[in-house]
Amino acid sequence: MITNESMDKLFHALAHEIRRSILDIVRDKPGLGVGELAKHFDVSRIAVMNHLSVLSQAGLIISGKEGRTRCLYLNVAPIQMIYDRWTDDYSRYWAERMTSIKYNVENALNKRNEK
Amino acid sequence: MITNESMDKLFHALAHEIRRSILDIVRDKPGLGVGELAKHFDVSRIAVMNHLSVLSQAGLIISGKEGRTRCLYLNVAPIQMIYDRWTDDYSRYWAERMTSIKYNVENALNKRNEK
Repeated sequence: MITNESMDKLFHALAHEIRRSILDIVRDKPGLGVGELAKHFDVSRIAVMNHLSVLSQAGLIISGKEGRTRCLYLNVAPIQMIYDRWTDDYSRYWAERMTSIKYNVENALNKRNEK
Repeated sequence: MITNESMDKLFHALAHEIRRSILDIVRDKPGLGVGELAKHFDVSRIAVMNHLSVLSQAGLIISGKEGRTRCLYLNVAPIQMIYDRWTDDYSRYWAERMTSIKYNVENALNKRNEK
């Protein structure tokens, strides 16, 4: 079991819009450099580095040096542990059905709004 | 997509040990009454009610009146949405394997410590 202190760090890390966006971007571009990442945000590079530090301490971002670039990778293991803690096969079946209806409705509404 | 404000509420709700324990208990005992739930904690009933209010606003707990009792149910849909946002089939495959190794090691260690 993940400790309560780690869980606090994890949810604190996820409770910020920019940090969630960082996870979205790194998921889509594994190995992205810090400089490239910072270009996505309208805040200072130092601010982005601070957010990355919070995400790393929560275990959500893993980074490695490649030459002079620090490359970023998403670690989904903590997300998997959240999911495992509160769902089982039965609740997953229903939650997947319910959320897929929600996503379909939202997609349909978005498409209608684009017209 | 879930709004940023709802996501903030969701992770704020999860970033507290007692609130996470409430979700564990209600997952194991669907339909549990508020009074019964409060007995699990060494805090006032009012404090438990406040935690329940935060969890309800985050969509994690759904409640319904049955007679004079307010009965509590876990809603895993927000957890499913967290999982869907940051994982895909490939990362799930690896995260499930890695976390299952972790759980097995922890179980083995716990059993050894019990002896």
